[in-house]
Amino acid sequence: MFFSLCYSLIEMQKKILKSDILKEVIKERPSHSNKTNYGRILLICGSKPFGGAAIMATKSVVNTGAGLVTLASDPINRTAMLSTIPEAMFADYYDRKNLSNMTKKADVILIGSGLEDSDFSEELIQETFSILTANQFLVIDGTALSMIGKRHLRIPQKPTSVLTPHQGEWERMTGLKVSEQTADANFLEMQKIGADYLILKSNASEIYAQKNPDQYNQLTIGGPFQAVGGMGDTLAGIVAGFLGQFRHDPFLTIQAAAYLHSWIAKQLSKQNYIALPTRISDQIPSAMRQITLASEQNN
Amino acid sequence: MFFSLCYSLIEMQKKILKSDILKEVIKERPSHSNKTNYGRILLICGSKPFGGAAIMATKSVVNTGAGLVTLASDPINRTAMLSTIPEAMFADYYDRKNLSNMTKKADVILIGSGLEDSDFSEELIQETFSILTANQFLVIDGTALSMIGKRHLRIPQKPTSVLTPHQGEWERMTGLKVSEQTADANFLEMQKIGADYLILKSNASEIYAQKNPDQYNQLTIGGPFQAVGGMGDTLAGIVAGFLGQFRHDPFLTIQAAAYLHSWIAKQLSKQNYIALPTRISDQIPSAMRQITLASEQNN
Amino acid sequence: MFFSLCYSLIEMQKKILKSDILKEVIKERPSHSNKTNYGRILLICGSKPFGGAAIMATKSVVNTGAGLVTLASDPINRTAMLSTIPEAMFADYYDRKNLSNMTKKADVILIGSGLEDSDFSEELIQETFSILTANQFLVIDGTALSMIGKRHLRIPQKPTSVLTPHQGEWERMTGLKVSEQTADANFLEMQKIGADYLILKSNASEIYAQKNPDQYNQLTIGGPFQAVGGMGDTLAGIVAGFLGQFRHDPFLTIQAAAYLHSWIAKQLSKQNYIALPTRISDQIPSAMRQITLASEQNN
Amino acid sequence: MFFSLCYSLIEMQKKILKSDILKEVIKERPSHSNKTNYGRILLICGSKPFGGAAIMATKSVVNTGAGLVTLASDPINRTAMLSTIPEAMFADYYDRKNLSNMTKKADVILIGSGLEDSDFSEELIQETFSILTANQFLVIDGTALSMIGKRHLRIPQKPTSVLTPHQGEWERMTGLKVSEQTADANFLEMQKIGADYLILKSNASEIYAQKNPDQYNQLTIGGPFQAVGGMGDTLAGIVAGFLGQFRHDPFLTIQAAAYLHSWIAKQLSKQNYIALPTRISDQIPSAMRQITLASEQNN
Repeated sequence: MFFSLCYSLIEMQKKILKSDILKEVIKERPSHSNKTNYGRILLICGSKPFGGAAIMATKSVVNTGAGLVTLASDPINRTAMLSTIPEAMFADYYDRKNLSNMTKKADVILIGSGLEDSDFSEELIQETFSILTANQFLVIDGTALSMIGKRHLRIPQKPTSVLTPHQGEWERMTGLKVSEQTADANFLEMQKIGADYLILKSNASEIYAQKNPDQYNQLTIGGPFQAVGGMGDTLAGIVAGFLGQFRHDPFLTIQAAAYLHSWIAKQLSKQNYIALPTRISDQIPSAMRQITLASEQNN
Repeated sequence: MFFSLCYSLIEMQKKILKSDILKEVIKERPSHSNKTNYGRILLICGSKPFGGAAIMATKSVVNTGAGLVTLASDPINRTAMLSTIPEAMFADYYDRKNLSNMTKKADVILIGSGLEDSDFSEELIQETFSILTANQFLVIDGTALSMIGKRHLRIPQKPTSVLTPHQGEWERMTGLKVSEQTADANFLEMQKIGADYLILKSNASEIYAQKNPDQYNQLTIGGPFQAVGGMGDTLAGIVAGFLGQFRHDPFLTIQAAAYLHSWIAKQLSKQNYIALPTRISDQIPSAMRQITLASEQNN
Repeated sequence: MFFSLCYSLIEMQKKILKSDILKEVIKERPSHSNKTNYGRILLICGSKPFGGAAIMATKSVVNTGAGLVTLASDPINRTAMLSTIPEAMFADYYDRKNLSNMTKKADVILIGSGLEDSDFSEELIQETFSILTANQFLVIDGTALSMIGKRHLRIPQKPTSVLTPHQGEWERMTGLKVSEQTADANFLEMQKIGADYLILKSNASEIYAQKNPDQYNQLTIGGPFQAVGGMGDTLAGIVAGFLGQFRHDPFLTIQAAAYLHSWIAKQLSKQNYIALPTRISDQIPSAMRQITLASEQNN
Repeated sequence: MFFSLCYSLIEMQKKILKSDILKEVIKERPSHSNKTNYGRILLICGSKPFGGAAIMATKSVVNTGAGLVTLASDPINRTAMLSTIPEAMFADYYDRKNLSNMTKKADVILIGSGLEDSDFSEELIQETFSILTANQFLVIDGTALSMIGKRHLRIPQKPTSVLTPHQGEWERMTGLKVSEQTADANFLEMQKIGADYLILKSNASEIYAQKNPDQYNQLTIGGPFQAVGGMGDTLAGIVAGFLGQFRHDPFLTIQAAAYLHSWIAKQLSKQNYIALPTRISDQIPSAMRQITLASEQNN
């Protein structure tokens, strides 16, 4: 009753995201800067069967230009990650003391891509959540989202949090069936959960901010060429990489991250039946450059 | 006696496959779809010495755009697979309980590419065959085919089955020497075996359907640039990937899969003495896009 | 005394290799053929510290279009090989019974690239040499050559043998200092050793045939852009791959293999300061195609 | 007091590096040469968590055209290195006797990229430092630099030494805060430490020679597109690779190495928001060729 009441009161407006979001967020780097200015990103991702998800997320973090990137994962994923993205560092997530230290030092923590639903994963999530402080960003993806619902975990309030569920994960997290995932219902659930930002992935992804009850953004440039495994891991990596660099306005930043991801996919889809996640990732540096180049030419 | 009688009665007609089979099968994806609409594919492939076969098959499944792809294999192949195709998941096939669960949930099971002839492989094959149900597709490739003949295994009748032997494997499976592999003889063996579809690979591959005793299809665009190791594993992967997505008419679907495979190889052969299997695989997304693009332009 | 006598008697003539050797050897494949027509190649290469040599040799065998390629090596090299060339199979060379079986079945055996000088390597070499029969080709490369000199191993007479030393290895094998490596001296040593063919690598490599005491071939298209580690391993792989396919006249075949290798390197050197071995390897299929294409257009 | 006195006495002059440094150093190779003419490079790099740094450094050494390249590292990094750069050899750095032998034979030793700060690393560094002789080059990078400061290690005086710290490492090494890192102060610290050359990396890197107290070089073509992890490891590799080949005047050689690194990065930045270290590395052979090609055309 209360919720349906709120529902009618909120009357959220939808805003369709346009490409100008990219120019608003992706700016040329100042000359006097070094890698520590572009974020220390820690991914806590990738159980034994799902190492590829962790690798794809790490690859896209690196490709955004994040300063220092570490994947903490099951050590079974070490060699494949190193072979694929030597730019990133690797940590064994069973070394909890080290993980805890790294978590404290990170600017952005991405947790959940390729984690399996297990007691160990729950421990990792809980401990991570308990450590984080106000100046950190927390991106929660994949199974970590389903586990929050199933295992009644609480999202920490100190860090700025971003959830990146697809519709199925959102359902498992909140109980809202896909047909019930209206903007207002989504926003209310987000309020209950206490997340700061929500990217609800679908064929027309929606982006919500806790601070912004009147309006949400919709992404209309995605397409079914993105309907393949690994797409979400790649997005989560872009979101984390962007938050490491563009911290001025996180809401704009995650909008730009989501837009860029689909924008590259759409470009690829002109020549490809599907946009493979690793190929999207490969295009991140050139796509970001197209944006700053266009800005230069307009000035 | 009986066979030669049947032989004369059947009088199978040969139909040469044309490129229009690609347009009939490869359709633009509907906007409102997600990865679960494009099939959950399980590969049970790759013993210790033949991990590359499993990797090539997995790579081509992923490249067709299949939704969720898992390779169940000897764990020794895990890191190489992850390094090559992070888009796929990996399972240890010695964890039989997990394998059995995954088998039940899969839409398409590809078994045999790079399996060695062993008692363990026989157990894997038998257990897989015993689990499958009516709504599933089963692609049997490589050594699994030879083992069916040698070890007198029976192809399960519940799932829709596709066999992808080359002439040597077909001989080991059926006892038919290459010189005896006439269309009618092939069809009769297929009937005895109880397979639904047969792709008999050669320099002019033939495609048979149990339901279609009057006619078989022949592929005339292949060439000797395909005569290298790994070619069949790549085809098996395309067949499995296509069955995960284009389920309307499996006979047409496997024709398109085989046609696409040779079509890409032929394109590559214009610039290359041989068409390396991994390079064929890399071209799948763009080749499929050429088809839908041509369809768009005609409408 | 005897040797200097022979020296003056032989008076070997030098013939400069021209590009027409490529057209003489690299022919379009007949349509009715399959991978078993293009050779079963076994590489016995790669000790623990030198796995890369084995991988580069294997990669270039595969890229020539050889039918079935297996690398027998230290198992520590398995995953890197699978990640790099899934088209090849892998065998643990400590499984001596299996290795012996594979050796018997192979058409071409390449031994020595990346083998370390050890008692175990000597055992491998000796056992391989003892198994080989008249219809097989044996390519001996790298440390296996130095070991033949140092450990007084005898080259087997049944298979057709090809040695691929660089000048330093030839010195370690024969005792001939680089300054003493005249054509006649080289030929005499080759006679003593009992090898059928010799590719003596240098900045102007020379190719000798036991059956051809009057003349040797020289390669003048190589260059210092080839002076990097791994160059010889790549050549050995091309030689082995070619012997698997073009068996009509082995002397011509190895000339074409050596020529192709330097021809690709030279092409690369137009745009690159050095011709990296793995990039040479990547170009093999297209370079071979250029040859058959030119032949087509002339007919 | 003494230092500020010296400061005013030295009055170092700044020279901006121009692209002609590339032509001065990168020369076409003489025809009569082989890989042993281009240096035996040993990298002692890469602890467990930082294998990627070692891989990137090794990759760039190979790509410069160095003759024989070996990475001595934690064996956990072996497979990823082999998968990425088969042109290089690998040694387990726990095998100290072998490492000591290889160190003696190397022309250039690069130590420190991706080493962790540990007692074991200190042992490695100390032993390496104690072995080196007058004809060898020693490049010290990464954590080895911080450890020199923190653990009071002494740079060996026999080999020609090059330090490649970024400003933070230079601070940890010398105690000089970034704001205090003036040319004169840097030079004085370098004198105290006893290093022959210093590349002090920043957004405008500076290059010093012990023998040259009047002048230092500055690199003004770098940019913030280089502010990503792995950039320094790639530079260290280019420096080591160049010292293996261009030994005439080491001061010029390291200037050219640093210039080339930023020059490639700048080229990449025209099309890419950031210049990924591994992509810079891939461009080394073609960039070096551009230089010799330009020299050819001018003659």
